Amino acid sequence: MWEYLENGSITSVQGIQAAGINCGLKKRKKDLALITSSAPAHAAGAFTLNKVQAAPVVISKEIVDSDNKAKAILINSANANACTGIEGFNDAIEIQKYCADKLGIAQNELLISSTGVIGERLKVDVVKGGIDDIVSKSSANGGLDAAKAIMTTDLTSKSYALKLALSSGEVTIGGMAKGSGMIHPNMATMLAFIATDAVIEKELLQKAISKVVNETFNKISVDGETSTNDMVLLISNDLSGVKIEAGSVDYHLFVSALKSICKKMAKAIVADGEGATKLITISVKNAKTDYDADTIAKAIAKSPLVKTAINGCDANWGRIISAAGSSGAEINPVNTSIFFDNHPVLLPDYNIVLDEEKAKQILSKNEVKIELDLSDGVSSSTWWTCDFSEDYVKINASYRS
Amino acid sequence: MWEYLENGSITSVQGIQAAGINCGLKKRKKDLALITSSAPAHAAGAFTLNKVQAAPVVISKEIVDSDNKAKAILINSANANACTGIEGFNDAIEIQKYCADKLGIAQNELLISSTGVIGERLKVDVVKGGIDDIVSKSSANGGLDAAKAIMTTDLTSKSYALKLALSSGEVTIGGMAKGSGMIHPNMATMLAFIATDAVIEKELLQKAISKVVNETFNKISVDGETSTNDMVLLISNDLSGVKIEAGSVDYHLFVSALKSICKKMAKAIVADGEGATKLITISVKNAKTDYDADTIAKAIAKSPLVKTAINGCDANWGRIISAAGSSGAEINPVNTSIFFDNHPVLLPDYNIVLDEEKAKQILSKNEVKIELDLSDGVSSSTWWTCDFSEDYVKINASYRS
Repeated sequence: MWEYLENGSITSVQGIQAAGINCGLKKRKKDLALITSSAPAHAAGAFTLNKVQAAPVVISKEIVDSDNKAKAILINSANANACTGIEGFNDAIEIQKYCADKLGIAQNELLISSTGVIGERLKVDVVKGGIDDIVSKSSANGGLDAAKAIMTTDLTSKSYALKLALSSGEVTIGGMAKGSGMIHPNMATMLAFIATDAVIEKELLQKAISKVVNETFNKISVDGETSTNDMVLLISNDLSGVKIEAGSVDYHLFVSALKSICKKMAKAIVADGEGATKLITISVKNAKTDYDADTIAKAIAKSPLVKTAINGCDANWGRIISAAGSSGAEINPVNTSIFFDNHPVLLPDYNIVLDEEKAKQILSKNEVKIELDLSDGVSSSTWWTCDFSEDYVKINASYRS
Repeated sequence: MWEYLENGSITSVQGIQAAGINCGLKKRKKDLALITSSAPAHAAGAFTLNKVQAAPVVISKEIVDSDNKAKAILINSANANACTGIEGFNDAIEIQKYCADKLGIAQNELLISSTGVIGERLKVDVVKGGIDDIVSKSSANGGLDAAKAIMTTDLTSKSYALKLALSSGEVTIGGMAKGSGMIHPNMATMLAFIATDAVIEKELLQKAISKVVNETFNKISVDGETSTNDMVLLISNDLSGVKIEAGSVDYHLFVSALKSICKKMAKAIVADGEGATKLITISVKNAKTDYDADTIAKAIAKSPLVKTAINGCDANWGRIISAAGSSGAEINPVNTSIFFDNHPVLLPDYNIVLDEEKAKQILSKNEVKIELDLSDGVSSSTWWTCDFSEDYVKINASYRS
């Protein structure tokens, strides 16, 4: 199957180089990342559904939707270049062109991404100075630095890579992500950049990432907000020489491995959510339909009352069943069971078997699993969320430059 | 038109008597309220759409849906009698029968309601003792006491009454409400009880309250949660002798007055929301459809990022437009304007006219109005919400018996 690499990153993938530097958008911390591929790569991705979309989202989406191959990705943190109008769009184009020229590639071979404060113009000259610097620094060891440069209020950088054995050889998948919250905050944002050296057609690559994003990054909630800048990009540069065909066992293995690495990144984003002290897994099983399972899991993952109770290690199952009941999905509370880490709290017919002591002990851990069994069908869904702490409010009420 | 009465309450209405006492569910504070009508009254109402419904919701809904007239309403706070199974249902029935007997009325003439902790059995004997006590205490001056007895974590009680001049005479509408949050909390809950002495057919009464609830209590959000116990009841006992016919000018006046009093209660609930320091009015105008206007206003009213920013008096319009953009409704951000208390912050074409000083000054007040002009149609919607403070988390993370 597959194996995670120690200190793995996006540059663990053949032909991928990267760097992360400070160009001056932030005071001292890294704020500019560059990822390059020595061979042209198919680009697939998923973008925010927010009707308000930042300029780099529009520009990168156009490349992903075209037949162009990509050769590099440039990402800045500290400024989202969102809600900046025509001028902001021109800024993004100018930076894209400048960087492409420096790299000696076509403008439409460079994907771009921004994250940070919205409604403020990006300092184009500062970024250009950074580009002059970063193109010479890109290396096969730069993955971890690049992951640091896309952080905002993240407390930890998020890098992973795995090797996957397929029928005709080995491929590597490496990725980096940033989560929700910024010191210069305007909204929660998540970005993920993933590369693979597998040989896989663009259409199939897009199919794989669409499916996987839906089961990982689309199942996490820190505060129920969707940003103007959310973006997941997956590039494949063929350098392994290992071909993945549609419908093959290899394709299914590739999707499973891709899901594994995206799940790792998604869970790391939630665990590092603003003010979070716990990673919470919400599993709903035996629902009538997939829609019901997903709607209920999502409602619980988003509920401020559930998330504050867990912050206080309060085994408040009433808030969980109430969130489920008000989700709009089908649920018969009389048939419902609730488990904390496989430990029963509520059994059918409102049979309350809550052991307060035991429940408090479970909720005091860094990772908590809450499971609802609806006894109503065979559908299931899993979401990941974090608890809701006073620090979340502190972070979001107090900071903006 | 209409005029609010000083110290008005539900007992300002002809024939309505009430009392509020401590029966022992809480340590010292009032926890049991009784409202009686000297003449049989039509009962109309609105009930939680949560699939998990407390026993008293099911029982009272049955009365409202039937042709029975109501003669009294019994409400306890401190315990919601929700998620208590068949036993909890039997407890509610037993209390209803006991109280009806004491009042000398039929069991199905007594509406009942509970609010407080869920998943715990109601102490039937304690409530019965309270009923013995409260039936003799009910009086034409008891409205304000009754309003106190339905409070949970509310900091202020909520009572209003108005006199409305109609073509053939004067009618009174009086009401009381409680808001979200409980010291013994399990979930946000809202209750409102309204009485009028107007002569109005049951069907028309229901039509009036359904319309008004939709425009008032259904447009408020403290934390986006819907409880197992939410209930609005409106009773009319004919004692004014003033008849209101369907489609008449009087009917429209009555609906306007009813909306006015319900809006007062709804806004009071939000202003007294858990941890709230500000009442925020969100108005969306010139949207393409009613659905778009309402969906956008609701998304902003529910956004933790908007609500924490306002808590910190941060003029973070980016979070507002992002919440609007991710609501799923139609919005063209380029055409959108944002105003704080009629003061422009953002004009079309991302023309940022934010005066930080002025905006901070506006956001520092106890009441803030945020308006979005979408320049996209003629539909509008108004929601009310409160800011999101560290105290909200403190209240909900730390307390449960």
